[in-house]
Amino acid sequence: MAQEIERKFLVKGDFKKFSPKATRITQGYLSSIPERTVRVRIKGDKGFITIKGIGNASGASRFEWEKEIPVSEVEQLLAICEPGVIDKTRYLVKSGDKTFEVDEFYGENEGLVLAEIELSSEEEAFTKPDWLGPEVTGDSKYYNSMLMKNPFKNWK
Amino acid sequence: MAQEIERKFLVKGDFKKFSPKATRITQGYLSSIPERTVRVRIKGDKGFITIKGIGNASGASRFEWEKEIPVSEVEQLLAICEPGVIDKTRYLVKSGDKTFEVDEFYGENEGLVLAEIELSSEEEAFTKPDWLGPEVTGDSKYYNSMLMKNPFKNWK
Repeated sequence: MAQEIERKFLVKGDFKKFSPKATRITQGYLSSIPERTVRVRIKGDKGFITIKGIGNASGASRFEWEKEIPVSEVEQLLAICEPGVIDKTRYLVKSGDKTFEVDEFYGENEGLVLAEIELSSEEEAFTKPDWLGPEVTGDSKYYNSMLMKNPFKNWK
Repeated sequence: MAQEIERKFLVKGDFKKFSPKATRITQGYLSSIPERTVRVRIKGDKGFITIKGIGNASGASRFEWEKEIPVSEVEQLLAICEPGVIDKTRYLVKSGDKTFEVDEFYGENEGLVLAEIELSSEEEAFTKPDWLGPEVTGDSKYYNSMLMKNPFKNWK
Protein backbone atom coordinates (compact mmCIF):
# COMPACT_ATOMS: atom_id res chain seq x y z
CA MET A 1 0.00 0.00 0.00
CA ALA A 2 1.86 3.08 -1.22
CA GLN A 3 1.80 6.11 -3.42
CA GLU A 4 3.99 5.16 -6.34
CA ILE A 5 5.78 7.81 -8.39
CA GLU A 6 6.44 6.41 -11.85
CA ARG A 7 7.72 8.04 -15.00
CA LYS A 8 7.20 6.31 -18.32
CA PHE A 9 9.17 6.63 -21.58
CA LEU A 10 9.28 5.26 -25.09
CA VAL A 11 12.43 3.34 -26.03
CA LYS A 12 14.52 4.30 -29.06
CA GLY A 13 17.61 2.10 -28.84
CA ASP A 14 18.95 -1.29 -27.82
CA PHE A 15 18.48 -1.88 -24.09
CA LYS A 16 18.59 -5.70 -24.02
CA LYS A 17 22.36 -5.96 -23.82
CA PHE A 18 22.18 -4.06 -20.49
CA SER A 19 19.51 -6.34 -19.01
CA PRO A 20 20.51 -9.26 -16.75
CA LYS A 21 16.92 -10.42 -16.23
CA ALA A 22 13.80 -10.98 -18.35
CA THR A 23 10.43 -12.21 -17.07
CA ARG A 24 7.34 -13.12 -19.06
CA ILE A 25 4.17 -11.38 -17.85
CA THR A 26 0.57 -12.27 -18.69
CA GLN A 27 -2.18 -10.12 -17.25
CA GLY A 28 -5.85 -9.29 -17.46
CA TYR A 29 -8.18 -6.70 -15.95
CA LEU A 30 -11.28 -7.20 -13.81
CA SER A 31 -11.72 -3.43 -14.00
CA SER A 32 -9.77 -1.25 -16.40
CA ILE A 33 -11.15 2.21 -15.70
CA PRO A 34 -8.30 4.47 -14.49
CA GLU A 35 -10.18 5.49 -11.29
CA ARG A 36 -10.00 1.90 -10.01
CA THR A 37 -8.11 -0.65 -12.07
CA VAL A 38 -8.11 -4.24 -10.77
CA ARG A 39 -5.42 -6.34 -12.44
CA VAL A 40 -4.46 -10.02 -12.11
CA ARG A 41 -1.02 -11.02 -13.31
CA ILE A 42 1.24 -14.03 -13.73
CA LYS A 43 4.86 -12.85 -13.53
CA GLY A 44 7.31 -15.70 -14.07
CA ASP A 45 6.14 -18.33 -11.55
CA LYS A 46 4.22 -15.97 -9.25
CA GLY A 47 0.68 -14.59 -9.20
CA PHE A 48 -0.56 -11.17 -8.09
CA ILE A 49 -3.68 -9.07 -7.74
CA THR A 50 -3.11 -5.30 -7.93
CA ILE A 51 -5.53 -2.41 -7.45
CA LYS A 52 -4.68 1.14 -8.52
CA GLY A 53 -6.59 4.38 -8.03
CA ILE A 54 -6.55 7.43 -10.23
CA GLY A 55 -3.32 9.40 -10.53
CA ASN A 56 -2.80 13.07 -9.75
CA ALA A 57 -2.91 15.70 -12.53
CA SER A 58 0.55 14.84 -13.90
CA GLY A 59 -0.28 11.13 -13.91
CA ALA A 60 2.91 10.20 -12.05
CA SER A 61 1.43 9.39 -8.64
CA ARG A 62 -1.15 6.60 -8.29
CA PHE A 63 -2.49 4.77 -5.19
CA GLU A 64 -1.48 1.08 -5.38
CA TRP A 65 -2.42 -2.04 -3.40
CA GLU A 66 -0.96 -5.47 -4.24
CA LYS A 67 -1.15 -9.04 -2.87
CA GLU A 68 0.61 -12.19 -4.00
CA ILE A 69 -1.84 -15.02 -4.75
CA PRO A 70 -1.38 -18.54 -6.23
CA VAL A 71 -0.88 -18.76 -10.02
CA SER A 72 -3.78 -21.26 -10.17
CA GLU A 73 -6.10 -18.59 -8.72
CA VAL A 74 -4.87 -15.98 -11.22
CA GLU A 75 -5.64 -18.46 -14.01
CA GLN A 76 -9.23 -18.84 -12.76
CA LEU A 77 -9.61 -15.07 -12.40
CA LEU A 78 -8.18 -14.47 -15.90
CA ALA A 79 -11.13 -16.51 -17.20
CA ILE A 80 -13.59 -13.84 -16.01
CA CYS A 81 -11.46 -10.80 -16.94
CA GLU A 82 -12.43 -8.22 -19.54
CA PRO A 83 -11.79 -9.39 -23.11
CA GLY A 84 -8.17 -8.93 -24.20
CA VAL A 85 -5.03 -9.91 -22.36
CA ILE A 86 -1.61 -8.24 -22.13
CA ASP A 87 1.37 -10.44 -22.92
CA LYS A 88 4.88 -9.01 -22.62
CA THR A 89 8.45 -9.62 -21.48
CA ARG A 90 9.80 -7.36 -18.75
CA TYR A 91 13.53 -6.54 -18.76
CA LEU A 92 15.27 -4.96 -15.77
CA VAL A 93 17.93 -2.42 -16.81
CA LYS A 94 20.18 -0.62 -14.29
CA SER A 95 20.82 3.09 -14.80
CA GLY A 96 22.90 4.77 -12.12
CA ASP A 97 21.41 3.67 -8.79
CA LYS A 98 17.96 3.16 -10.33
CA THR A 99 16.45 0.30 -12.33
CA PHE A 100 14.26 0.73 -15.37
CA GLU A 101 11.51 -1.79 -16.07
CA VAL A 102 11.37 -2.14 -19.85
CA ASP A 103 8.31 -3.92 -21.30
CA GLU A 104 8.41 -5.42 -24.79
CA PHE A 105 4.85 -6.20 -25.87
CA TYR A 106 3.56 -9.08 -28.00
CA GLY A 107 0.33 -9.88 -29.81
CA GLU A 108 -1.80 -6.86 -30.66
CA ASN A 109 0.80 -4.55 -29.08
CA GLU A 110 3.80 -6.01 -30.96
CA GLY A 111 6.32 -3.27 -31.73
CA LEU A 112 5.64 -1.23 -28.59
CA VAL A 113 8.41 -0.97 -25.98
CA LEU A 114 7.94 1.09 -22.80
CA ALA A 115 10.41 1.93 -20.02
CA GLU A 116 9.30 2.85 -16.50
CA ILE A 117 11.27 4.15 -13.54
CA GLU A 118 10.05 4.41 -9.93
CA LEU A 119 11.08 7.53 -8.03
CA SER A 120 10.60 8.80 -4.49
CA SER A 121 9.27 12.16 -5.72
CA GLU A 122 8.19 13.66 -9.03
CA GLU A 123 11.19 15.99 -9.00
CA GLU A 124 13.87 13.36 -8.24
CA ALA A 125 16.72 13.41 -10.76
CA PHE A 126 17.83 10.19 -12.49
CA THR A 127 20.35 9.08 -15.12
CA LYS A 128 18.84 8.99 -18.65
CA PRO A 129 20.38 6.15 -20.66
CA ASP A 130 21.08 6.55 -24.44
CA TRP A 131 18.27 4.14 -25.38
CA LEU A 132 15.60 6.19 -23.58
CA GLY A 133 13.06 7.92 -25.85
CA PRO A 134 10.44 10.64 -25.26
CA GLU A 135 8.52 10.76 -21.96
CA VAL A 136 4.87 9.58 -22.05
CA THR A 137 4.07 9.74 -18.28
CA GLY A 138 0.37 10.33 -17.68
CA ASP A 139 -0.65 9.67 -21.30
CA SER A 140 -3.46 7.18 -20.68
CA LYS A 141 -3.13 5.48 -24.07
CA TYR A 142 0.07 3.88 -22.77
CA TYR A 143 -1.67 2.43 -19.67
CA ASN A 144 -1.72 -1.37 -19.96
CA SER A 145 -5.47 -1.20 -19.31
CA MET A 146 -5.88 0.99 -22.41
CA LEU A 147 -3.47 -1.06 -24.56
CA MET A 148 -5.93 -3.93 -24.16
CA LYS A 149 -8.86 -1.96 -25.67
CA ASN A 150 -6.97 0.12 -28.17
CA PRO A 151 -3.80 -1.84 -28.96
CA PHE A 152 -0.67 -0.37 -30.59
CA LYS A 153 -1.35 -2.05 -33.96
CA ASN A 154 -4.50 0.14 -34.34
CA TRP A 155 -2.66 3.42 -33.74
CA LYS A 156 -1.06 3.70 -37.20
CA MET B 1 -12.49 -20.47 -4.87
CA ALA B 2 -15.81 -22.21 -5.39
CA GLN B 3 -19.08 -22.29 -7.25
CA GLU B 4 -21.61 -21.03 -4.74
CA ILE B 5 -25.27 -21.99 -4.96
CA GLU B 6 -27.34 -19.30 -3.26
CA ARG B 7 -31.08 -18.73 -3.11
CA LYS B 8 -32.38 -15.33 -2.06
CA PHE B 9 -35.74 -14.38 -0.54
CA LEU B 10 -37.63 -11.39 0.76
CA VAL B 11 -38.53 -11.44 4.45
CA LYS B 12 -42.12 -11.01 5.63
CA GLY B 13 -41.99 -11.70 9.39
CA ASP B 14 -39.93 -11.38 12.53
CA PHE B 15 -36.68 -13.31 12.27
CA LYS B 16 -34.57 -11.46 14.86
CA LYS B 17 -35.79 -13.49 17.84
CA PHE B 18 -34.30 -16.60 16.15
CA SER B 19 -30.91 -14.99 15.55
CA PRO B 20 -28.06 -15.55 18.03
CA LYS B 21 -25.61 -13.36 16.09
CA ALA B 22 -25.62 -9.99 14.32
CA THR B 23 -22.66 -8.42 12.52
CA ARG B 24 -22.38 -4.97 11.00
CA ILE B 25 -21.18 -4.99 7.37
CA THR B 26 -19.86 -2.03 5.37
CA GLN B 27 -18.87 -2.63 1.78
CA GLY B 28 -18.03 -0.94 -1.49
CA TYR B 29 -17.38 -2.02 -5.07
CA LEU B 30 -14.30 -1.52 -7.21
CA SER B 31 -16.30 -3.08 -10.04
CA SER B 32 -20.04 -3.65 -9.83
CA ILE B 33 -20.84 -5.16 -13.23
CA PRO B 34 -22.30 -8.65 -12.73
CA GLU B 35 -19.73 -10.30 -15.08
CA ARG B 36 -16.93 -9.39 -12.66
CA THR B 37 -17.82 -7.74 -9.39
CA VAL B 38 -14.91 -6.79 -7.11
CA ARG B 39 -16.08 -6.04 -3.58
CA VAL B 40 -14.24 -4.90 -0.43
CA ARG B 41 -15.95 -5.42 2.88
CA ILE B 42 -15.55 -4.82 6.61
CA LYS B 43 -17.48 -7.50 8.49
CA GLY B 44 -17.31 -7.00 12.25
CA ASP B 45 -13.56 -6.71 12.92
CA LYS B 46 -12.36 -8.44 9.71
CA GLY B 47 -11.67 -7.26 6.17
CA PHE B 48 -12.21 -9.09 2.87
CA ILE B 49 -11.84 -8.72 -0.87
CA THR B 50 -14.25 -10.83 -2.94
CA ILE B 51 -14.49 -11.33 -6.70
CA LYS B 52 -17.54 -12.88 -8.35
CA GLY B 53 -18.16 -13.85 -11.97
CA ILE B 54 -21.46 -13.97 -13.77
CA GLY B 55 -24.06 -16.50 -12.66
CA ASN B 56 -25.70 -19.18 -14.75
CA ALA B 57 -29.13 -18.61 -16.34
CA SER B 58 -31.06 -19.08 -13.07
CA GLY B 59 -28.71 -16.74 -11.23
CA ALA B 60 -28.11 -19.22 -8.40
CA SER B 61 -24.56 -20.30 -9.26
CA ARG B 62 -21.74 -17.73 -9.36
CA PHE B 63 -17.95 -18.14 -9.43
CA GLU B 64 -16.48 -16.68 -6.22
CA TRP B 65 -12.96 -15.88 -5.01
CA GLU B 66 -12.28 -14.36 -1.57
CA LYS B 67 -9.25 -13.35 0.56
CA GLU B 68 -9.09 -11.93 4.06
CA ILE B 69 -7.15 -8.65 4.21
CA PRO B 70 -6.52 -6.11 7.02
CA VAL B 71 -9.41 -3.74 7.87
CA SER B 72 -7.01 -0.78 7.40
CA GLU B 73 -6.45 -1.88 3.77
CA VAL B 74 -10.20 -2.23 3.16
CA GLU B 75 -10.61 1.34 4.48
CA GLN B 76 -8.05 2.64 1.98
CA LEU B 77 -9.67 0.66 -0.85
CA LEU B 78 -13.16 1.91 0.11
CA ALA B 79 -11.84 5.44 -0.59
CA ILE B 80 -11.41 4.61 -4.30
CA CYS B 81 -14.57 2.51 -4.67
CA GLU B 82 -17.51 3.44 -6.89
CA PRO B 83 -19.77 6.10 -5.33
CA GLY B 84 -22.25 4.63 -2.85
CA VAL B 85 -21.61 2.21 -0.04
CA ILE B 86 -23.72 -0.62 1.37
CA ASP B 87 -24.28 -0.54 5.12
CA LYS B 88 -26.27 -3.37 6.77
CA THR B 89 -26.51 -5.72 9.71
CA ARG B 90 -26.28 -9.44 8.97
CA TYR B 91 -28.22 -11.84 11.21
CA LEU B 92 -27.58 -15.60 11.19
CA VAL B 93 -30.79 -17.62 11.57
CA LYS B 94 -30.82 -21.44 11.84
CA SER B 95 -33.49 -23.34 9.90
CA GLY B 96 -33.25 -27.13 10.08
CA ASP B 97 -29.59 -28.00 9.42
CA LYS B 98 -29.06 -24.86 7.32
CA THR B 99 -28.37 -21.24 8.28
CA PHE B 100 -29.98 -18.24 6.62
CA GLU B 101 -28.01 -15.00 6.33
CA VAL B 102 -30.55 -12.22 6.78
CA ASP B 103 -29.44 -8.70 5.81
CA GLU B 104 -31.22 -5.64 7.18
CA PHE B 105 -30.17 -2.61 5.16
CA TYR B 106 -29.65 1.00 6.29
CA GLY B 107 -29.25 4.36 4.58
CA GLU B 108 -30.67 4.50 1.04
CA ASN B 109 -31.81 0.87 1.31
CA GLU B 110 -33.60 1.28 4.69
CA GLY B 111 -36.68 -0.96 4.81
CA LEU B 112 -35.19 -3.74 2.67
CA VAL B 113 -34.52 -7.11 4.34
CA LEU B 114 -33.11 -10.04 2.33
CA ALA B 115 -32.52 -13.68 3.36
CA GLU B 116 -29.98 -15.91 1.63
CA ILE B 117 -29.30 -19.61 1.98
CA GLU B 118 -26.29 -21.50 0.60
CA LEU B 119 -26.99 -24.94 -0.88
CA SER B 120 -24.88 -27.69 -2.39
CA SER B 121 -27.08 -27.86 -5.50
CA GLU B 122 -29.90 -25.84 -7.02
CA GLU B 123 -32.36 -28.66 -6.33
CA GLU B 124 -31.43 -29.27 -2.68
CA ALA B 125 -34.47 -29.15 -0.36
CA PHE B 126 -34.45 -26.95 2.77
CA THR B 127 -36.78 -25.95 5.60
CA LYS B 128 -38.73 -22.76 4.83
CA PRO B 129 -39.29 -20.76 8.04
CA ASP B 130 -42.55 -18.78 8.62
CA TRP B 131 -40.83 -15.43 8.21
CA LEU B 132 -39.53 -16.25 4.70
CA GLY B 133 -41.15 -14.25 1.87
CA PRO B 134 -41.13 -14.63 -1.94
CA GLU B 135 -37.99 -15.87 -3.73
CA VAL B 136 -35.95 -13.27 -5.66
CA THR B 137 -32.96 -15.45 -6.67
CA GLY B 138 -31.34 -14.17 -9.87
CA ASP B 139 -33.23 -10.85 -9.88
CA SER B 140 -30.30 -8.49 -10.36
CA LYS B 141 -32.00 -5.52 -8.70
CA TYR B 142 -31.45 -7.30 -5.37
CA TYR B 143 -27.69 -7.69 -5.97
CA ASN B 144 -25.81 -5.52 -3.46
CA SER B 145 -23.93 -4.05 -6.42
CA MET B 146 -27.25 -2.86 -7.90
CA LEU B 147 -28.68 -1.66 -4.57
CA MET B 148 -25.85 0.86 -4.52
CA LYS B 149 -26.83 2.44 -7.86
CA ASN B 150 -30.58 2.03 -7.63
CA PRO B 151 -31.35 1.86 -3.90
CA PHE B 152 -34.58 0.53 -2.41
CA LYS B 153 -35.91 4.02 -1.51
CA ASN B 154 -36.09 4.85 -5.26
CA TRP B 155 -38.19 1.77 -6.12
CA LYS B 156 -41.50 3.10 -4.82
